[in-house]
Amino acid sequence: MLQYQGQPLDLAFQALSDPGRRAMVERLSRGPATVSELAAPLPMTLSAVVQHLKVLEEAGLVTSEKTGRVRTCTLDVAAMTQVERWVAERRRFWEQQYDNLEAYLARTAPEEGRT
Amino acid sequence: MLQYQGQPLDLAFQALSDPGRRAMVERLSRGPATVSELAAPLPMTLSAVVQHLKVLEEAGLVTSEKTGRVRTCTLDVAAMTQVERWVAERRRFWEQQYDNLEAYLARTAPEEGRT
Repeated sequence: MLQYQGQPLDLAFQALSDPGRRAMVERLSRGPATVSELAAPLPMTLSAVVQHLKVLEEAGLVTSEKTGRVRTCTLDVAAMTQVERWVAERRRFWEQQYDNLEAYLARTAPEEGRT
Repeated sequence: MLQYQGQPLDLAFQALSDPGRRAMVERLSRGPATVSELAAPLPMTLSAVVQHLKVLEEAGLVTSEKTGRVRTCTLDVAAMTQVERWVAERRRFWEQQYDNLEAYLARTAPEEGRT
């Protein structure tokens, strides 16, 4: 039986399926930001931003820390790397598949001077 | 305003948030497979597999073709590449952020022989 990757990847992919949350991740990939800074360019209420942040935090993609009345959010690079690694590993397999096909075609193609 | 990536990425990330669907993508990254071959190692009914396949096809991650009574599924490498590219682009930014920090620290760190 194929081995399942488990919950962390489920939550990470789920969190990244929303364009608003991806926009927040895009902003945070450029460095930490306060909730207000995150919300400023987004066409949604602050309350919606906070909800989306909660999803991102539960998925382990973002961490946040409150200092006084200001909450600062940071991208969790490790969780993003896990997502990237999963896709890259699939790519490794399909590239290998193409390489095998190429090698097969090279082997079986009629070639001049071949005996 | 930050630009949204639009629907294709929404559907792709959503489709990949399920461990059963990721298992199918893992299988298909090794080459095309019939629906029965896809279903064989999975702890779910054939009908559930067909439902999951539908989600993967709607997300553009998989295409399928029916010959006689056999449906063969193939991974859509372009759609997977789009997902990988989105994550890789985020990485590019956070790595740059670290590089900038490193350069800043190198510039500001006390150094012997510095005037």
